[in-house]
Amino acid sequence: MTKGAATRDRIIQRAERIAGLEGLDGITFGVLAAELAMSKSGLFAHFGSREGLQLAVLLRAVDRFHADVLYPGLRARSGEPRLRSLVHRWLAWERTREARGGDLLSAAAFEFDDRPGIVRDCLVTSQRRWLATLAVACTIAIEAGHFRAGIDAEAWVREAHGVILAHRVAQRLLGDAQADRRAAAAMDELFARSREVAHKPRRRRAA
Amino acid sequence: MTKGAATRDRIIQRAERIAGLEGLDGITFGVLAAELAMSKSGLFAHFGSREGLQLAVLLRAVDRFHADVLYPGLRARSGEPRLRSLVHRWLAWERTREARGGDLLSAAAFEFDDRPGIVRDCLVTSQRRWLATLAVACTIAIEAGHFRAGIDAEAWVREAHGVILAHRVAQRLLGDAQADRRAAAAMDELFARSREVAHKPRRRRAA
Repeated sequence: MTKGAATRDRIIQRAERIAGLEGLDGITFGVLAAELAMSKSGLFAHFGSREGLQLAVLLRAVDRFHADVLYPGLRARSGEPRLRSLVHRWLAWERTREARGGDLLSAAAFEFDDRPGIVRDCLVTSQRRWLATLAVACTIAIEAGHFRAGIDAEAWVREAHGVILAHRVAQRLLGDAQADRRAAAAMDELFARSREVAHKPRRRRAA
Repeated sequence: MTKGAATRDRIIQRAERIAGLEGLDGITFGVLAAELAMSKSGLFAHFGSREGLQLAVLLRAVDRFHADVLYPGLRARSGEPRLRSLVHRWLAWERTREARGGDLLSAAAFEFDDRPGIVRDCLVTSQRRWLATLAVACTIAIEAGHFRAGIDAEAWVREAHGVILAHRVAQRLLGDAQADRRAAAAMDELFARSREVAHKPRRRRAA
């Protein structure tokens, strides 16, 4: 790592800690300069603008999401097992808090939804890509006969997303000690319900 | 309205507009003083602190939520009709954006989840109360025989909450033109499934 890259890395790490607590908007060059004993112009030289630094922090969270959730999840057998692996890793990741960025991505979805710019663009792209990946996995589960035909893959993914988001509010804001258990149960129920009719015709054919 | 109350009202209205765009954290005395051509010390005199003003804005959003969602929703016949009225008004309200505060409450849930203080306390209290109200309405729907026995009212409410939150991300961040239709369909599906056992035998007999 060059000296420049090492400094950039140190700045991003500090900015990540701030963003974990206060959101990407909590990142300001003023605070960072003081915490890192650097000049504001030094920070500018590394990231061009405050938005550039927010983007760097966001991209790092996206990288971690891929490393923790996407890549290992894709290793599972295609169809329902893969979808289940992806979704449960997603839920686990959302619970990891600041350390890995689980906090950051879903908070940023609410923080930046009305604010045009490169940060929002990056967030939209990564979220769309992730949800599309899940929709493909869900479609494969349908085609493989693991899920019943007629399931709307996009609606399915939105429902899983709802479980993730409601879990977050229940755990972080409302302090529900049962939040993890409830979220896992809700996901299980979603999977069970998606297989539901697939079981019925078999019974009918047998009759 | 006294002159003091009128001024306070004018400040809150301006602060609401800022909060609608940037979240409660976007409210600063510096920006407000410039926009309202007032001194910062004048703002301090009215609200004691920036947190006091954030609280005033939050309480106004909660008031509107009660006026638009809670009170009219409670007028519906108890059981499933009341629950349906409450939940659909909630969904409609979340779509109203800045003007009524629909944006504010769910954004604040993510913005303040890690930040102790009176704003967070107020948010937690109002959210808990609202979700508890829905859980009671759901319990009554079960007791009335509208919903099947064995439904976990808290899990039911969390699922409805998930629909609301996922809708918001889909509509605001991801720009899904079908977001409203999908959210309404997801709510309908949740209600249909909650009655499920009563209906299923009928469908089977028809086949």
